[in-house]
Amino acid sequence: MEIITDIATLRTRLQREPSIALVPTMGNLHQGHLSLVRIAQQHAACTVVSIFVNRLQFAPHEDFDHYPRTHADDCQLLEKLAVDIVFLPDEKTLYPVSQEFQLLLPPLADTLEGAFRPGFFRGVATVVLKLFNIVQPQLAVFGKKDYQQLHIVQKMVQQLNLPVEIMAAETVRSADGLALSSRNSYLSEAERQQASDLFRTLHHIKQTIAQGNRDFRALEQSARSNLASHGWQVDYIALQQRETLLPAQVGDTDLVILAAARLGQTRLIDNLEILIQEPAINTMERISNPSSRQAV
Amino acid sequence: MEIITDIATLRTRLQREPSIALVPTMGNLHQGHLSLVRIAQQHAACTVVSIFVNRLQFAPHEDFDHYPRTHADDCQLLEKLAVDIVFLPDEKTLYPVSQEFQLLLPPLADTLEGAFRPGFFRGVATVVLKLFNIVQPQLAVFGKKDYQQLHIVQKMVQQLNLPVEIMAAETVRSADGLALSSRNSYLSEAERQQASDLFRTLHHIKQTIAQGNRDFRALEQSARSNLASHGWQVDYIALQQRETLLPAQVGDTDLVILAAARLGQTRLIDNLEILIQEPAINTMERISNPSSRQAV
Repeated sequence: MEIITDIATLRTRLQREPSIALVPTMGNLHQGHLSLVRIAQQHAACTVVSIFVNRLQFAPHEDFDHYPRTHADDCQLLEKLAVDIVFLPDEKTLYPVSQEFQLLLPPLADTLEGAFRPGFFRGVATVVLKLFNIVQPQLAVFGKKDYQQLHIVQKMVQQLNLPVEIMAAETVRSADGLALSSRNSYLSEAERQQASDLFRTLHHIKQTIAQGNRDFRALEQSARSNLASHGWQVDYIALQQRETLLPAQVGDTDLVILAAARLGQTRLIDNLEILIQEPAINTMERISNPSSRQAV
Repeated sequence: MEIITDIATLRTRLQREPSIALVPTMGNLHQGHLSLVRIAQQHAACTVVSIFVNRLQFAPHEDFDHYPRTHADDCQLLEKLAVDIVFLPDEKTLYPVSQEFQLLLPPLADTLEGAFRPGFFRGVATVVLKLFNIVQPQLAVFGKKDYQQLHIVQKMVQQLNLPVEIMAAETVRSADGLALSSRNSYLSEAERQQASDLFRTLHHIKQTIAQGNRDFRALEQSARSNLASHGWQVDYIALQQRETLLPAQVGDTDLVILAAARLGQTRLIDNLEILIQEPAINTMERISNPSSRQAV
């Protein structure tokens, strides 16, 4: 495994590769990241994992300074997987001058995560675009854990005609359901015990929908109240259309519940896809005739 | 010569090329464009000329609808030069949906041309980025006629780490000095006679500076008055540093004069580079001791 820190060396090294897959990360790697790496390795001759804590996507009040940096451990994990190249640029390499050329994103980037983390997706999209231009991969792998990020990167690739295929990897979870995340390390032991509330809440919404409930806004509100009563500060719980990430309406069948909530100082996000296979229930009818649920 | 209108066909066709040069144009080709094509041909195995009138870079009140479209003539000219590929996408090909991912540019893009054509450089940079991603050229050629555009594209390549080299081509002029431009066709016969005023004005500033004058702001003002007295409506005449396109100061040696002015309904732009080879004159000293100019 080669560790490369500068752009010119990386480009020269990659010239001879017939196919390249990129896994962009901020390091502090866990099994979630490693699952992305395995997907990359199955689809390209050469896998590049980039590790870069991207200042551009952190708001001033956020945890840029404290974000866990564990490069030695990360490289050991990647070495075990026989990754070809780790790209480990420092800040001056990716941002030699103030990054004035950035991406202007669709309004969707100001909703959900974007509403609570202003500039986050602009920072993400800009660094991803730069990494694509540096590595020139045919393939890049992103996790569904950051669902809205994945969505925005896919749209960016379409709208900017980027010559790269985006592959999505399923979220990896602990036994209790908590989605793996570098930020889980911020949790106290007690908070860690409680953290799986978030996934259980999403799962409960999914079950309730499977049972026929289509009052999406009420489901969001009740989940929010439930988490709040257990000490969470909820940023959002939103039932959206999977294709557009706009709010789901009765009749939509391909959904995703997205959530962000804070436990103490730690902000966690998670999501769950829901495919409705049964016919939609008419909400008005259900309200006027509560027993109709059983008829479906 | 192949004329290709869709992205997938173009990408397939280009896969076998060892090196590709791109000349992005809006068509209505003249000798200025053809000089860019010749440069491209000297530096790559395959030359692609794109022709696309890019709505994104026109303000609503501008001449998008009336911009001259002469595709048949253009293709004849390019055929004579033995260009390999003309990429002639229609609007739905480059903008199948509303282009929501655009580029956010540095403040410089709101000055000079950008001050008079809001959104112009964002539209240019966005379509150039898309064309780069579609064609994936090693080299792209831009004319110095659009000096600020060339500057912004070069900065974009640096800041987004685009794997393409930008080559600059000198402005091609008529015998009377007028820079060739598709918009010259808008001029009446009388206006065409007068249009070379603009270049003569720039040339006069250059000569005055060569003679030792360093009062840049006064030179700009006097050129502006002079053009106005001959019926021009001047948008700007600006003596800038070549490296930054910021206003030139006494002591700067590598300059460019940029100008935009309207004659009747037609808006023309031009520019002239100035390299000061003699030592700079201290303006204060020259003011307090007018004879010092002779001492230099």
